[in-house]
Amino acid sequence: MAGNSFGDAFRITTFGESHGEAVGVIIDGVTPGVELDEPYIQIQMDRRKPGQSSVTSPRKEYDRIRILSGVYEGKTTGTPLSILLHNTDMRPEAYSDIQHSFRPGHADYTYLMKYGIRDHRGSGRASGRETAGRVAAGAVARKLLENRGISIIAYTKAIGGIECKTFVEGEIERNAVRACDPEAALQMIERIESLANAGNSCGGIVECRIRGVMPGLGEPVFDKLDADLAKSMLSIGAIKGIEFGAGFAAADMLGSEHNDEMNADGFLSNHSGGIIGGISTGNEIIFRVVVKPTSSISIPQHTVNENGKEQLIVTEGRHDPCICPRIVPVIEAMACLVLEDHYKRQGAMLY
Amino acid sequence: MAGNSFGDAFRITTFGESHGEAVGVIIDGVTPGVELDEPYIQIQMDRRKPGQSSVTSPRKEYDRIRILSGVYEGKTTGTPLSILLHNTDMRPEAYSDIQHSFRPGHADYTYLMKYGIRDHRGSGRASGRETAGRVAAGAVARKLLENRGISIIAYTKAIGGIECKTFVEGEIERNAVRACDPEAALQMIERIESLANAGNSCGGIVECRIRGVMPGLGEPVFDKLDADLAKSMLSIGAIKGIEFGAGFAAADMLGSEHNDEMNADGFLSNHSGGIIGGISTGNEIIFRVVVKPTSSISIPQHTVNENGKEQLIVTEGRHDPCICPRIVPVIEAMACLVLEDHYKRQGAMLY
Amino acid sequence: MAGNSFGDAFRITTFGESHGEAVGVIIDGVTPGVELDEPYIQIQMDRRKPGQSSVTSPRKEYDRIRILSGVYEGKTTGTPLSILLHNTDMRPEAYSDIQHSFRPGHADYTYLMKYGIRDHRGSGRASGRETAGRVAAGAVARKLLENRGISIIAYTKAIGGIECKTFVEGEIERNAVRACDPEAALQMIERIESLANAGNSCGGIVECRIRGVMPGLGEPVFDKLDADLAKSMLSIGAIKGIEFGAGFAAADMLGSEHNDEMNADGFLSNHSGGIIGGISTGNEIIFRVVVKPTSSISIPQHTVNENGKEQLIVTEGRHDPCICPRIVPVIEAMACLVLEDHYKRQGAMLY
Amino acid sequence: MAGNSFGDAFRITTFGESHGEAVGVIIDGVTPGVELDEPYIQIQMDRRKPGQSSVTSPRKEYDRIRILSGVYEGKTTGTPLSILLHNTDMRPEAYSDIQHSFRPGHADYTYLMKYGIRDHRGSGRASGRETAGRVAAGAVARKLLENRGISIIAYTKAIGGIECKTFVEGEIERNAVRACDPEAALQMIERIESLANAGNSCGGIVECRIRGVMPGLGEPVFDKLDADLAKSMLSIGAIKGIEFGAGFAAADMLGSEHNDEMNADGFLSNHSGGIIGGISTGNEIIFRVVVKPTSSISIPQHTVNENGKEQLIVTEGRHDPCICPRIVPVIEAMACLVLEDHYKRQGAMLY
Repeated sequence: MAGNSFGDAFRITTFGESHGEAVGVIIDGVTPGVELDEPYIQIQMDRRKPGQSSVTSPRKEYDRIRILSGVYEGKTTGTPLSILLHNTDMRPEAYSDIQHSFRPGHADYTYLMKYGIRDHRGSGRASGRETAGRVAAGAVARKLLENRGISIIAYTKAIGGIECKTFVEGEIERNAVRACDPEAALQMIERIESLANAGNSCGGIVECRIRGVMPGLGEPVFDKLDADLAKSMLSIGAIKGIEFGAGFAAADMLGSEHNDEMNADGFLSNHSGGIIGGISTGNEIIFRVVVKPTSSISIPQHTVNENGKEQLIVTEGRHDPCICPRIVPVIEAMACLVLEDHYKRQGAMLY
Repeated sequence: MAGNSFGDAFRITTFGESHGEAVGVIIDGVTPGVELDEPYIQIQMDRRKPGQSSVTSPRKEYDRIRILSGVYEGKTTGTPLSILLHNTDMRPEAYSDIQHSFRPGHADYTYLMKYGIRDHRGSGRASGRETAGRVAAGAVARKLLENRGISIIAYTKAIGGIECKTFVEGEIERNAVRACDPEAALQMIERIESLANAGNSCGGIVECRIRGVMPGLGEPVFDKLDADLAKSMLSIGAIKGIEFGAGFAAADMLGSEHNDEMNADGFLSNHSGGIIGGISTGNEIIFRVVVKPTSSISIPQHTVNENGKEQLIVTEGRHDPCICPRIVPVIEAMACLVLEDHYKRQGAMLY
Repeated sequence: MAGNSFGDAFRITTFGESHGEAVGVIIDGVTPGVELDEPYIQIQMDRRKPGQSSVTSPRKEYDRIRILSGVYEGKTTGTPLSILLHNTDMRPEAYSDIQHSFRPGHADYTYLMKYGIRDHRGSGRASGRETAGRVAAGAVARKLLENRGISIIAYTKAIGGIECKTFVEGEIERNAVRACDPEAALQMIERIESLANAGNSCGGIVECRIRGVMPGLGEPVFDKLDADLAKSMLSIGAIKGIEFGAGFAAADMLGSEHNDEMNADGFLSNHSGGIIGGISTGNEIIFRVVVKPTSSISIPQHTVNENGKEQLIVTEGRHDPCICPRIVPVIEAMACLVLEDHYKRQGAMLY
Repeated sequence: MAGNSFGDAFRITTFGESHGEAVGVIIDGVTPGVELDEPYIQIQMDRRKPGQSSVTSPRKEYDRIRILSGVYEGKTTGTPLSILLHNTDMRPEAYSDIQHSFRPGHADYTYLMKYGIRDHRGSGRASGRETAGRVAAGAVARKLLENRGISIIAYTKAIGGIECKTFVEGEIERNAVRACDPEAALQMIERIESLANAGNSCGGIVECRIRGVMPGLGEPVFDKLDADLAKSMLSIGAIKGIEFGAGFAAADMLGSEHNDEMNADGFLSNHSGGIIGGISTGNEIIFRVVVKPTSSISIPQHTVNENGKEQLIVTEGRHDPCICPRIVPVIEAMACLVLEDHYKRQGAMLY
């Protein structure tokens, strides 16, 4: 009801505020008897953490996870797997000047309207910090999906108006923006650095590809596989849209163009993005999301405070001028959670 | 788990196959004591039904709803409100030739892969017919939302490459394609008729605006208001993408452009589409979805049958060459369901 | 939220009022490809229907079920299986005299307090009529459980102070009270008839045995198998208590007596009732429930009307002087629903 | 699905094993703006902790709770409230001898059958230690219920064959067994000490009374207030039965005796236990549960090990010879959770 859980048969609940004592996640429904250790999860955490490169926030948040339960002698037990991350390098005083003002683009105003109270420090629960728990849980799901032969990758497709022209999978994790085109990556980095110097920020597009999913995955009516993926992606703060396969381009296509014809070897195209009627076709699942420009900028902007008094505000702090590089592992994590949940739901149906 | 329910505090469950005996919906969580009758719901059903105009399917499906429970002496009782629509004008024999083949763009193949069995008649459960129950339930939600002072409208923004240039709200329900620009509407109708004659189909874009929502609605983490709207829209068969506010254009915007600044009167822009951090701002909620071209076309296409034998297929039947006009009330219905559910969830939190 | 659904992976939703147009049930999560027809379900309906014998209500409610969806050519499809029962032999006028009064033991007062409105005809939704949908859904679950080798039987253990001394399984369905002791059954029938003549009613105890469940079924913390069975039983209007295995007698036992010891062949006793730590042991699952005396009696009783005016009330109508015989199939149905749900949940975990 | 969460609008998830690093609970759906601090919760924890008296386990488990999130400057924020308890005084080596054997009455065998793997240390997740999280969450619910004017008390009614003859509320927390009759309490303590010396254990009965609940609380079909209370109680490991109001005695009562008549001042009796048709009457809610004898005894018992080899086992360790005194706060906690959840659900319906 209050919406801090996600999934059904494989279900996570996150908790914790950005500048509170800790953030974390509980995973309920983990397959028992699977080998799992902290370093495996830590790999994904390190892809999300700040301070990775010149284009990410310089905060030195130490994202060291700790498994508190659900793993015994190196194997999952089937009981709730809980993961905790203590918060460090918190500087709540950085927020004291603006604690009664509404930062443009942030959820300060909406939280206060909803709850009548808010923890202003570093956006509290609305902070990107909340996604740390998601990434940890996603790593557990990824482990289970690997055992099913499934791979999930996301990467930057465009940043600040610069688009990737090629798709070189091996280059993605080698550049600071996680772009699939190494040349475009260089331009993107330059663009971000220039904007950061100007105290501004920019948005971008991230694409995700999922391979190895059997045909027949997904619940066909409300819990369509694409519907659940869409929800999972829009549940990430900075994401404002999603499209599958041909996506918005389908608006200008004819039925004879968009339909994926088949022959004895399978589908002849993949305009559907690997999902038809909410169920996987067995083709690669492919979707794109739009990432809005980071809201925290150091250019003065018009706003009001809690008393309605108008003022100019500058969002100080150590922020990412473009969130694409660090949102990539969050997108992969959410995709992993959706897939593992649907596999388990399929298991329930067939049992 | 099996995904035929939607919502939490205001929850619907749909049932029924396209060419079975009936389709329907159960609504659990209706506010008691609200005046409601069948004609109010029928208005929305009539906007969705086939045979409305030259650009919709000529089927004469008689979408007459019947309330079976949950209303007593003209008022809701708080008990499950069930609505039934008997299927009529079924011609299952129209499907007998292709019952063992996979129609391109349809869910024939994916259903068989999932269930190992399928009701081939008129797509069974994957048919647009399933949305009749949604529209009926959406009308009940709309009634409750009207009492809250909320209005929800959707309309065609583009069809087959033709875009609306103006937004004239009063014209929407006056043209056969439900476009917000009467001149564009004429071109759209012409385009659809020409494609229909050629046995082809086209896609489009539908926009939705929701007004009157208080600031502070939505659960801020996984069940963000935009996340739930995204899920609800992608759960409609023909929809392949969604974007809020500035949407995909945000990829090319700067933080200084995208952030919605405030003054004492409220927000100075609405690039966020009325939702920040998953919670309503009080501004108009605005989003767009892409509608894929209708899969059923009478141009021969390559496919295989259940034995893997290659063949050419022509999808006969009485289909809509463009589904936009009839999907408009479905989109409104799903938006109503999401909103009423979130209002009730807010009620739970505050009680 | 509003509580008209039960189960998780195998989930039912009931709808309909006693004297409305129809009652029914939607089942979501049915295994596809299972042979199922209406007569199989009807068998269970006929065990629940009124007018079976001299000790049940003489109403001639025609409990003929109709499958509206989810079955195609004699097999389940995996889509929602919906079952409808039209109400017949309704005599709402029988209730017009007392429509503004609160019948003692009935939910008239509590419904009005909750909803501020009520459908007074024959208890509306609080009627035992609502359980017709449960029995229909339970029959579907029973079919799936039979395929797993599981049997579920319930029977009267005591009525009006008369207890069964023997357990003769083959006699249960041969006597009008469904007692496991044919001699006690004769006394029970006599007792009920005598009370009925006096316009009074009585309670009893029903026992349920489930055989063939594998060891290892049940979720060990909140959704313990016994916890879910307890909820399912207490969700039946007339049931006011439940006990497993040794039950309340365990209060006077020592640990050395109550513990079920084991040898190489299995457990040496079954004081636990076949469930330890919320998970099945593989032994017979056995529990008892207490059934309160039927609330509707024709002896004048003190009550008030909606305006608080005191009055004497006589609950006319055609009622069962003891509900045990007809509650037996409802108890079996609820047990079937819990078991099938937990089997599917086990399937999700293991997949 | 995997069953480690409880509640709907006010929902908790517990995690952690008895001898793992920590146990804890996440609460989702807390009303924002409510004053709450750790000492308030600690009071309830201290009522549950071991080592309180001569009749409880001498373990020195330090049940110091820590709120990690959801409270800011002494008030709840509406975000997930997470509470952690680090495990201390763990002596897993005490379990090493019996790690491959099945202790009679314990869930060792059933866990292994379910998961194929188990954390044998101190029963792992099946330990009473898991209830620490429930008690912490229950304290938060109790705070909200106090603001609604509701009180919840539970107490020992019988232990080892000794029954309370009087009900002196003020004496309950003054004796080591939390009995409502101080004289019976003395006998109970003597009985427990004598059994403890003999290495044996005993069971008992606990009663719970809830006052101040408005009439009209509860969802009337599956989620009846008594059904949810029954589930919550049977979800506690040692509890094997529950009865409301007249309970099992109703089997021998007539309708004319059991029905609660009304006059202008309200109900004339409370055989229903304060709940009719699943909805509160406004009367005191009263129910009793049976607590089985503690399974851990130091008298040798027959069992087998994981290889099926027969053996005698003695369950060493520091155990409670009767769990009644320490289960009282757990019962109160679960009742609090059910009530607060139903209040919030009522809030959703009415909003």
